[in-house]
Amino acid sequence: MTADASLVHVGRVRSMLKTLEQCPKQGSEGAPVSRVEIDPPYRSALEGIEPGSQLVILTWLDQADRTALQVHPRGNPDKPLTGVFCTRSPNRPNPIGLHDVRVVALQENGTLVVESLEVLDNTPVLDIKNMGSREAGTS
Amino acid sequence: MTADASLVHVGRVRSMLKTLEQCPKQGSEGAPVSRVEIDPPYRSALEGIEPGSQLVILTWLDQADRTALQVHPRGNPDKPLTGVFCTRSPNRPNPIGLHDVRVVALQENGTLVVESLEVLDNTPVLDIKNMGSREAGTS
Repeated sequence: MTADASLVHVGRVRSMLKTLEQCPKQGSEGAPVSRVEIDPPYRSALEGIEPGSQLVILTWLDQADRTALQVHPRGNPDKPLTGVFCTRSPNRPNPIGLHDVRVVALQENGTLVVESLEVLDNTPVLDIKNMGSREAGTS
Repeated sequence: MTADASLVHVGRVRSMLKTLEQCPKQGSEGAPVSRVEIDPPYRSALEGIEPGSQLVILTWLDQADRTALQVHPRGNPDKPLTGVFCTRSPNRPNPIGLHDVRVVALQENGTLVVESLEVLDNTPVLDIKNMGSREAGTS
């Protein structure tokens, strides 16, 4: 695979989910409270986030199969093969996870405590977006 | 900047938006109908997408400033500096754009015609997700 662009990890998720078997299929299906630890060089980018903020966390699903182009939905072989772009499967060419979360608390060391983040402990964090904001952007 | 992971471009956006000045701040503020052209190796990942599908397109905002950690919201210097993780600014360490779009039509050459995609012509596409699906995934 030839790289077209490069990513940096800006932090890590700390979660009680230690294996893929423990992960719910979706955050709404019962994800635990987790912590999002942002590394020191990026902590000033958290300015303005408050308890109650609704954010989208982008993660790098480093255990995904990047060669998968079609999957059986929900891993059920009885369901027809479907293109990964028509699913939420973590297996896809660029395994970026999107997670809607609510901030429960902020800790002084650049850590957000959030509800409903359904990823494994130690998953790299790529980005955080406040989709409710009306801030500048073409994104 | 040391890379922690690498991305592939799976396609490109074709749009009448040719300069940043033409881009609305948000898709809901009047983005034109655009085309998402998926490259041949990735076209089978589109299987199952239909006209009317509501998708999230992930793009690589290659004109963004990756060194920005705080911005004035909406580029207004009267507004206080805010962390980019508390905004939708395209300027951020990993400039991944998220775009909610509706599929208007599919063309045979791996092209989706979509409404409300507020990015420049030629912007690289990273991923497409069907967030309405209940498919397998930890994403």
